[in-house]
Amino acid sequence: MDYWFAEIITIGNEVLSGKTVNTNASHIGRRLTSLGFVVRRITVVMDEIDEIVSAFKEAIARKPKIIISSGGLGPTWDDKTAEGLAKALGVELELNKVAFEMVLEKYRKRNIPITEERKKMAYMPIGAIPVNNQQGIAPGIYIYYNNIDILATPGVPREMEDVLENFIKSGLIRNKPNVKYFEDYIYVENVMESALAPYVKDLVKKYDVYIKTHPKSYELSHPILEIQIALNEKEEDKAKVKIQNVKNELIDAIKKLNGIIRNSL
Amino acid sequence: MDYWFAEIITIGNEVLSGKTVNTNASHIGRRLTSLGFVVRRITVVMDEIDEIVSAFKEAIARKPKIIISSGGLGPTWDDKTAEGLAKALGVELELNKVAFEMVLEKYRKRNIPITEERKKMAYMPIGAIPVNNQQGIAPGIYIYYNNIDILATPGVPREMEDVLENFIKSGLIRNKPNVKYFEDYIYVENVMESALAPYVKDLVKKYDVYIKTHPKSYELSHPILEIQIALNEKEEDKAKVKIQNVKNELIDAIKKLNGIIRNSL
Repeated sequence: MDYWFAEIITIGNEVLSGKTVNTNASHIGRRLTSLGFVVRRITVVMDEIDEIVSAFKEAIARKPKIIISSGGLGPTWDDKTAEGLAKALGVELELNKVAFEMVLEKYRKRNIPITEERKKMAYMPIGAIPVNNQQGIAPGIYIYYNNIDILATPGVPREMEDVLENFIKSGLIRNKPNVKYFEDYIYVENVMESALAPYVKDLVKKYDVYIKTHPKSYELSHPILEIQIALNEKEEDKAKVKIQNVKNELIDAIKKLNGIIRNSL
Repeated sequence: MDYWFAEIITIGNEVLSGKTVNTNASHIGRRLTSLGFVVRRITVVMDEIDEIVSAFKEAIARKPKIIISSGGLGPTWDDKTAEGLAKALGVELELNKVAFEMVLEKYRKRNIPITEERKKMAYMPIGAIPVNNQQGIAPGIYIYYNNIDILATPGVPREMEDVLENFIKSGLIRNKPNVKYFEDYIYVENVMESALAPYVKDLVKKYDVYIKTHPKSYELSHPILEIQIALNEKEEDKAKVKIQNVKNELIDAIKKLNGIIRNSL
């Protein structure tokens, strides 16, 4: 298997305090996985310059193919991602002309004057390319640095999703995976996770695939398992055969353990 | 303000790939915040030894008062948190007798034999104290290291919650905050986040509190803001006066900006 590692950074005190559930990271994780990337780490940090700089620097040092952040691009005092990213890359912030035009146009249409807070959303690290945000005002920030595609998106979910899709469609991604992601599931009743564990362990070794049992009920009294089989592969046919072979062996094991195969959870 | 920093570590590929939303981290974040801690970082890593070791080592190096992890305590091949934590602390894993008794008892009650996979859940770093898990089998792992309270909980949400509550009730936490957390909210219609931004910035400086505007609608066409005012304080009276003063000044600003105060979102 080839690995195209990705990292996700979430910026926002409200995620750390548990006020907001980090659905942004899940959305970005699913999208990256579907493109063939393997998300290796999610880091959530406070709306503070030093924290944001550390998060980007540490992610860059681990050399993933792509880093996507969300949060901290708005007009308020605690929106510090552009500045933090610039510092992490060792470049200056500048008023990005394309971004400023994007921001200006949105306020202009409604006859709202531009202020320092509004202008702030057009400041980007030198060398960045703004990515259109049709759901809000702050554009996304794309920059290619040390062979890593880096994209900063806003924190409002529909804005993050919009910027992310615009980015994917834009053709800006330089490190496109040469593999695709495939997965399949088996749902089982009446088999304890601990009983299936040795079979799963052997199959992971034998086929070099990812198999994970997700317990969905009570191990002892009424075990229900979701078994995930996943891999990244260049050829679809090869992936499908592999998954089918693993499924067949798993089903044999489940039968041995008196398990009942279900169609869904 | 005093800061009692906390870190959260989530272990699980399913969180990285976006298959599972990280509600565990939110729950732990809310609980730590309510106790007076300030969660400074959440790190999500893969079910791999090196990744788990790194996550714990890096968190320990940042010297928080407490670290709470979830995930990776089960019976399967990819449950590696106990081993990863032991390596991060530089100690050996051992069969913890108290933990083994907890595990044994659960299977014994149902006449289910113990196997290597089941026994695995009782291995803990030397010096660890098991924390009872009434919702599942794997006990939590508590260890005090370098002046940091470290707790590893299982990944199944109801098991994580149970272990966390048992831990809080146990009196094991050595670094208890000497402050409490207070917060209040204002909900506003018809004020753009970018318009309120300069007022908020000034108030944050003036009162040394945390104020964050959470945009809940469209900035330009129909702005709705949730304004959060939060602080950690030793004395309740002092905290309440401060919050009320901030609220009064915010309400003045909102009126100046033709905003409408709402009772809820």
